Amino acid sequence: MTGYAAPVRDIRFLLCDLLDVSQQLPGADLSSDIIDPILEAAATFSREVISPLNRSGDEAGCSMPAPGEVRTPAGFREAYQQYCEAGWTSMGCATEDGGQDMPFVLHGLVAEIFSGANMAWTSYPGMSNAAYICLAANGDAQQRKLYLPRIASGQWAGTMCLTEPHAGTDLGLLRTRAVPNMNGSFDLTGTKIFISGGEQDLTENIVHLVLARLPDAPSGTKGISLFVVPKFLHDDDGHLLERNPVTCGSIEHKMGIRANSTCTMNFDGARGWLVGEAGKGLAAMFVMMNHARLGVGISALGQMQAAYQKALAYAEERRQGRAGAGGLGAGPDAIIRHADVRRMLLVQKAYVEGSRALIAWASLQHDLAHRGDAEAGERLALVTPIVKAFVSDCAVECTSLAIQVFGGHGFIRETGVEQHLRDARIIPLYEGANGIQAMDLLGRKVLMDGGERLRLLARDIAGFIEQESGSEQLRPLLSELGSAAKTLDMVTRQIAKSAASDPDLVGSVAVPYLRLCGHVCLAWMWARMAAVGHAKAGSEDPVYADKIATARFYFACLLPEVRSLAVQIEAGSAPVIAVALSHSNH
Amino acid sequence: MTGYAAPVRDIRFLLCDLLDVSQQLPGADLSSDIIDPILEAAATFSREVISPLNRSGDEAGCSMPAPGEVRTPAGFREAYQQYCEAGWTSMGCATEDGGQDMPFVLHGLVAEIFSGANMAWTSYPGMSNAAYICLAANGDAQQRKLYLPRIASGQWAGTMCLTEPHAGTDLGLLRTRAVPNMNGSFDLTGTKIFISGGEQDLTENIVHLVLARLPDAPSGTKGISLFVVPKFLHDDDGHLLERNPVTCGSIEHKMGIRANSTCTMNFDGARGWLVGEAGKGLAAMFVMMNHARLGVGISALGQMQAAYQKALAYAEERRQGRAGAGGLGAGPDAIIRHADVRRMLLVQKAYVEGSRALIAWASLQHDLAHRGDAEAGERLALVTPIVKAFVSDCAVECTSLAIQVFGGHGFIRETGVEQHLRDARIIPLYEGANGIQAMDLLGRKVLMDGGERLRLLARDIAGFIEQESGSEQLRPLLSELGSAAKTLDMVTRQIAKSAASDPDLVGSVAVPYLRLCGHVCLAWMWARMAAVGHAKAGSEDPVYADKIATARFYFACLLPEVRSLAVQIEAGSAPVIAVALSHSNH
Repeated sequence: MTGYAAPVRDIRFLLCDLLDVSQQLPGADLSSDIIDPILEAAATFSREVISPLNRSGDEAGCSMPAPGEVRTPAGFREAYQQYCEAGWTSMGCATEDGGQDMPFVLHGLVAEIFSGANMAWTSYPGMSNAAYICLAANGDAQQRKLYLPRIASGQWAGTMCLTEPHAGTDLGLLRTRAVPNMNGSFDLTGTKIFISGGEQDLTENIVHLVLARLPDAPSGTKGISLFVVPKFLHDDDGHLLERNPVTCGSIEHKMGIRANSTCTMNFDGARGWLVGEAGKGLAAMFVMMNHARLGVGISALGQMQAAYQKALAYAEERRQGRAGAGGLGAGPDAIIRHADVRRMLLVQKAYVEGSRALIAWASLQHDLAHRGDAEAGERLALVTPIVKAFVSDCAVECTSLAIQVFGGHGFIRETGVEQHLRDARIIPLYEGANGIQAMDLLGRKVLMDGGERLRLLARDIAGFIEQESGSEQLRPLLSELGSAAKTLDMVTRQIAKSAASDPDLVGSVAVPYLRLCGHVCLAWMWARMAAVGHAKAGSEDPVYADKIATARFYFACLLPEVRSLAVQIEAGSAPVIAVALSHSNH
Repeated sequence: MTGYAAPVRDIRFLLCDLLDVSQQLPGADLSSDIIDPILEAAATFSREVISPLNRSGDEAGCSMPAPGEVRTPAGFREAYQQYCEAGWTSMGCATEDGGQDMPFVLHGLVAEIFSGANMAWTSYPGMSNAAYICLAANGDAQQRKLYLPRIASGQWAGTMCLTEPHAGTDLGLLRTRAVPNMNGSFDLTGTKIFISGGEQDLTENIVHLVLARLPDAPSGTKGISLFVVPKFLHDDDGHLLERNPVTCGSIEHKMGIRANSTCTMNFDGARGWLVGEAGKGLAAMFVMMNHARLGVGISALGQMQAAYQKALAYAEERRQGRAGAGGLGAGPDAIIRHADVRRMLLVQKAYVEGSRALIAWASLQHDLAHRGDAEAGERLALVTPIVKAFVSDCAVECTSLAIQVFGGHGFIRETGVEQHLRDARIIPLYEGANGIQAMDLLGRKVLMDGGERLRLLARDIAGFIEQESGSEQLRPLLSELGSAAKTLDMVTRQIAKSAASDPDLVGSVAVPYLRLCGHVCLAWMWARMAAVGHAKAGSEDPVYADKIATARFYFACLLPEVRSLAVQIEAGSAPVIAVALSHSNH
């Protein structure tokens, strides 16, 4: 089995051919001279340093050699040091913090490369990056000066401490208390669970961002404030002082990402400082959360890509049976010649490359929004839950299909492909479960603004169809794309009409609604990629013909799901509510 | 978390209300007086003996304390002895072998109970049962007399040795050689992989049924013969003699069913005897294989049921957020009140109970066929690949949904729900991968007999619709059922027209075709269950109203997949074949 190969060619297609980012983001140096060496360096690091640690890390998992201490698997620490030294931790950080201020459209796709090679390992710097974003947006000048450069360099790590045993989706229930001291600091007491990287042996200090309640805070979400709580206290120059009483009580034994420590963190009067305004903790966290949702969508893409490339290589090597028209006739054929195996590979390919295009486009909206383009910000807000939930659902489906390509060998740990399903399976669960993403999309992003954002997307799609309407070759795809967009418009109107009088409607249909939106987005992306392919007809680079053929597969075999989703949505809440579900009925 | 609760109420509904098995199988004593104590005893054994070993067995896995020896997890051996003593191993065996000759419609549903409680453990006696069936059908009088009673009692175990490293789906490639001795025995040499229970510490002897080639055998499947190779040689009275050189070289480390030993078996001139005719080994094995395919469909149902009941119990306990119309208003609601959680539970419920009905019906066809009903045999042949592949695909989907109901807690091993996905994930892979089932269905069962079997099913469904046509309440369901059946008929005609001229067509569309057939079968079962529900209107037993409401959910939210499947099938082979899939393109 060959090692992880970063999808550099496809990333270049997206940045240069599909999105033309150097045109879209003038001033940001995104020429090939800049992009290519970065992608090649990421490919080399992922292939040579972290991919070899993926299976050994999964087998070993994290351990607790002594109370409160967490040991990451062999090689993780050395890889982390190399990663910091190469400057990867600061890719997206501001230049004033020692970072490279790289546009997210490039940073995000580089993150896919690392995550595809080793999701558990990549989650350590990934969480620090989320903490960086949260502190950059909400910290005061002193906090920013103290923490941001140290997180950017990778010297210190960051975590997000939200969940408590009885408070997951419903953070309004959280109980961790923050009691003010005379000197402006606070003492935090409580228990947080599922804290990724809450303890590890990679960095000299860990900066915990913690949601907690002040003594006089109201109940519910309005009483939640954000605090920064370092593992080691420090002076104003960042020199480490004594240990703060925030300790890891235990680590979880998980289905996947076993090499990433998932910690129960006990705050026993741990010293912390308020970040942003009291009572605005949840809002402060959400700046980071939305970005983290894109981030976990990217990691889902990474797992799909990694599993797909394993399945593709296996299908080219493994010989069983005689294929149909594609068979060679003498002796068993490589299973890639069997139509059913091709179908499984194509489902993966279409979701992988379609999702990557959607993520690249969404990342570009992020960069445009940072430059003041308000509409880009609205587009990003709309597709963020789609990227998180649709792509992670596809990752579960596609990593499972990759196992299927391997037959019985896929079930054996040594083969390495089953790990991708186990690792990917967390993505629909964390950073807001996918059902929550669906309600965010339908309830908040679509219905609460009267469908304004959705009309923006519809106009984008209609504009594209109009622009390409002269293309004879694209016509069948454009027709299907238009029809899917029309279906989305129709079901949205139906839901909007009934949602006020039926309080169960949004919850009943949100998940199929999000999937329908995901397909409309992917159909748009595949039609755009096919358009690029046709524009480059005659090129010797096989990527262009490949995009046209894969788009055709997507439209023929995956997009039709839209029809059944529409019927499900039209059924409304009644079938979901009518059954008297009860355990005691059994 | 409560322990495993066998779905006794639903099984009784199927046997008594839906299928009326005591009427259908006159002479077989299937009255409530007989059925109820058997189901209760199975429920007790599963809850008290093997369910408690499920997670500990998964954590420990199997080990090799010395070369060639396999140790099963703590408690497995004692549980197996109890199981044998209670007579469960001989449920389906002939009375002349000391068995109880129980109809499969009951035996199969009892098997679900054990498999749901502990799939890895249940696979040990499950493989023995498969070996029993194979030997009963193909062994000579002496082999039958020697082996069948010992396997029926559980004293000896059986295995099926088919796969070799380079020969999985394509058994024609197998290389294991059998060289005849002067005394009528054969010496077998070769390596078999993925042998479930190939070595274990549960039984005093293991009877391996092995596919191998005679020296003068032609290549391909026609050169394959079946042999019986005992672990310990024995005299004609079954007294154990010396060890036969068939040894376990290693055990696999797997994603799931970790407590079931999956062995590489080395045959180093191991003594064996021919079973049935030379060169007819594959046909002899297929008697058992078809039954084993029903069996693994049943184990898939068991995993869905087990995961579903965990998710249901958790959803009733866990409180987060405020629900819609179903909410109680004060404080967080149990998540079962949230529409999206209900939807996830209902998908599971509809697939679990629909699959159970289909399996019970198929099992009844098995019993009727054994009584000489040729049409029942044709019905069984048709739905066997559907039971295997459709139900196992549903099991992967539904066990994953059960994890989703738990949110982040579902990813933690201690919760126990993620094990069901890991265990269930093997079912689409073994006993003929699901793609092979789909090709068996479409190629062999439908096209090769000119659609005769499918017309039998269509007549069954049309007869049911006709019979219930007076029911106002059933009308919407009957209309949808008729429409799904018509879609199946239409796509079958299209495929039949083009298959001869397009050698890739069957492979390209077989998987969505099987899924479409699965939905037609489930729609028929749900409509029948709803019909029973309406017939029992006014009963105090909530199961009847529950079936009506769940049928409505199935028709509204799951059956619509038929529409997208039909479009995918109509697209034919072109989109699947057109892409130049290659690893080197990346």
